[in-house]
Amino acid sequence: MNLKRGLDSMFKQIPGASFSVQYWDGETIAYGEEKPEFLLRLRDPSSVRRLLRDPFMRLPDAYVSGQVVVEGNLQRLLRLGYALDPRLLRVNPLRKALLYFATLARRNSLRGARDNVSHHYDRGNEFYELWLDREMNYSCAYFEDAADDLDRAQCQKLHHICKKLRLKPGQRLLDIGCGWGALAAHAVREFDVSVLGITPSKEQVARCQSKLRHSGLDGRVEVRLQDYRELETEPFDAVASVGMIEHVGKSYLPAYMAAVARSLRPGGTGVFQLISQTHEKAVAPWISKYIFPGMYLPPLGELATEMARAGLRIIDVENLRPHYALTLDAWIERFENKREAIRVMFDDRFVRMWRMYLNAACAAFKYGELNLWQVTFTHGFSDRMPLTRRYLYDEPARQAPSTRRVA
Amino acid sequence: MNLKRGLDSMFKQIPGASFSVQYWDGETIAYGEEKPEFLLRLRDPSSVRRLLRDPFMRLPDAYVSGQVVVEGNLQRLLRLGYALDPRLLRVNPLRKALLYFATLARRNSLRGARDNVSHHYDRGNEFYELWLDREMNYSCAYFEDAADDLDRAQCQKLHHICKKLRLKPGQRLLDIGCGWGALAAHAVREFDVSVLGITPSKEQVARCQSKLRHSGLDGRVEVRLQDYRELETEPFDAVASVGMIEHVGKSYLPAYMAAVARSLRPGGTGVFQLISQTHEKAVAPWISKYIFPGMYLPPLGELATEMARAGLRIIDVENLRPHYALTLDAWIERFENKREAIRVMFDDRFVRMWRMYLNAACAAFKYGELNLWQVTFTHGFSDRMPLTRRYLYDEPARQAPSTRRVA
Repeated sequence: MNLKRGLDSMFKQIPGASFSVQYWDGETIAYGEEKPEFLLRLRDPSSVRRLLRDPFMRLPDAYVSGQVVVEGNLQRLLRLGYALDPRLLRVNPLRKALLYFATLARRNSLRGARDNVSHHYDRGNEFYELWLDREMNYSCAYFEDAADDLDRAQCQKLHHICKKLRLKPGQRLLDIGCGWGALAAHAVREFDVSVLGITPSKEQVARCQSKLRHSGLDGRVEVRLQDYRELETEPFDAVASVGMIEHVGKSYLPAYMAAVARSLRPGGTGVFQLISQTHEKAVAPWISKYIFPGMYLPPLGELATEMARAGLRIIDVENLRPHYALTLDAWIERFENKREAIRVMFDDRFVRMWRMYLNAACAAFKYGELNLWQVTFTHGFSDRMPLTRRYLYDEPARQAPSTRRVA
Repeated sequence: MNLKRGLDSMFKQIPGASFSVQYWDGETIAYGEEKPEFLLRLRDPSSVRRLLRDPFMRLPDAYVSGQVVVEGNLQRLLRLGYALDPRLLRVNPLRKALLYFATLARRNSLRGARDNVSHHYDRGNEFYELWLDREMNYSCAYFEDAADDLDRAQCQKLHHICKKLRLKPGQRLLDIGCGWGALAAHAVREFDVSVLGITPSKEQVARCQSKLRHSGLDGRVEVRLQDYRELETEPFDAVASVGMIEHVGKSYLPAYMAAVARSLRPGGTGVFQLISQTHEKAVAPWISKYIFPGMYLPPLGELATEMARAGLRIIDVENLRPHYALTLDAWIERFENKREAIRVMFDDRFVRMWRMYLNAACAAFKYGELNLWQVTFTHGFSDRMPLTRRYLYDEPARQAPSTRRVA
């Protein structure tokens, strides 16, 4: 009864939120002034008591196990984590510090990185095919307009990056963390370059290679099962790395930047796209444990310092933060449309776990402090960059290139 | 004779430079393969010997005193400082470290900052009128085209900043370090806002106030003799600070960012424009001693970290480095055209000192590691920013607003 009264008092202190809570005794109480955005069902007091001692870990856990049920808008529930006074959540600062060091300790050594990547990306290509866009971009899209569909927005992202790279026919592009090859295929088809893509994911290499063969691009794109530390010194004209720095880890950032500098000819252009915390801190513990082991999201200050040390000179930084919220909402919609197929492929628990992950990431971009940077740089200063960024916007907004389907 | 042989051997090791040296014994030797870019006259061996022990301080000193004469392209001489192997220059690392701490120690306290600013900016408005553009912008211009004249490029800079600020009619803009009021006047005339400008320079305040009265803008712009630390908490819609952070100093960056955050309403937009070192280091000692006491040029990593701490959320960073080389070359041309008038106003020594300063700054942008950042940010994250930066480029390149002359 004390616990219920404590929760009731905590919920009443949350500003600007409207929701209902069904307590274990059957009573449902509505909080806030508006129509409830979600209903939170709490099944038993002892699991709630445990949850309150470590909410950022145990709320998602309880959701996945079914001890806590959420009906309605899950992101609005997760928003409460940002809106609540941290003192109400009783998060132990010692535990927070330990978590931070635990994240640093999950080292992305050559072997560790391969395991960490495999944990997420080798779930099976069929799974990702169900809900990603048709070119299988697993990173933030670029919405010229919030109403753009996902296929168009992902194609616009690839085009935006290629334009930032100022690719010229015949040039060689290195794509570090090439995923399922969407950027490589776009760069070859639209900018007439050749590409080396590397990834430590076996499933991605297999899918890339068959896709490239089918589309006749295999003479222009090579995909290797390789870590960035295994790159030989080759003078590429351009380097792209999209959604990859997140997997490098704090202690390996200098090695990563050095590998990029070694692989990019002096004066050559590069683009990084990455998720980045506003302040230096560990990734949310539940995400780090279940979804992305080894993930670290360097703040811009740290990234800029490491790039400067490696001789990578920043010329342009764009924060696409709202674009990742739009991308994740599109993924969530597609994921939910295919949830029966995903349930058959895995199980109920898996569906809830991924629903939690996608919604938590989306909430962090909408209500939290995540950024999505596109950083353009040259290896050493270059005199050959255009004076202004107008060249990125010289095509009308609605004339992104057609999203042609690769067979 | 040994000294001459040593210099001769050093000059022969410089890659890609063509120049002549006239030694104290009358002999002139040409170095490099091409037509000489400058002639360096060395008048006596003892001053050269002293110079070599601390070249970054004593070469400019010797130039100003006339012990060293340069005919031809001064910037190509200064480039040698970047091209030479540092070991050849025998710079004592201890002295370098001491210089760094000396810069940090020249503190920009409330009193110190006023003296430091006055040292440079209170030289007399008539002096700056001789060679700045007609609106008296003393900061980097924005060249849509390298052939733009300075008046146009400065006006384009003001417009670019105002567009980044997304100023709407009726809004209130705070301009921290308002100089001679060019940005304030542009914002009022072209974007229909009202402006508070602050500067610790008495000469600037006097000139601003008379200029604004003459142009009838004095009802819309207020200019105060004030330090950023003396700002009251007022909810401005937008904040600009152009060529100002350079004068804040390393130890006062947190106080500066806090003042900006206090003065900008949540969700409001700001733009910083500043010169920035690529790596953390002291300003060139001669510049720090004679030209800009108290100057510190924070690298992007440091700037981003301090902004994050103050709640200023970066959304866009543009490196306009080549624009400052163009701006300085334009200033140098105008300065040289007026050098007789400036000689009368001051003396020969002053002309040589300012020629050295302007050319050294230009060489640092062309051959060294200086950046010119425009950083757009919001106070806390804002959902009201446009999805893309296309709005900055929606006017055709050559249709910058007319540069109307203020009476």
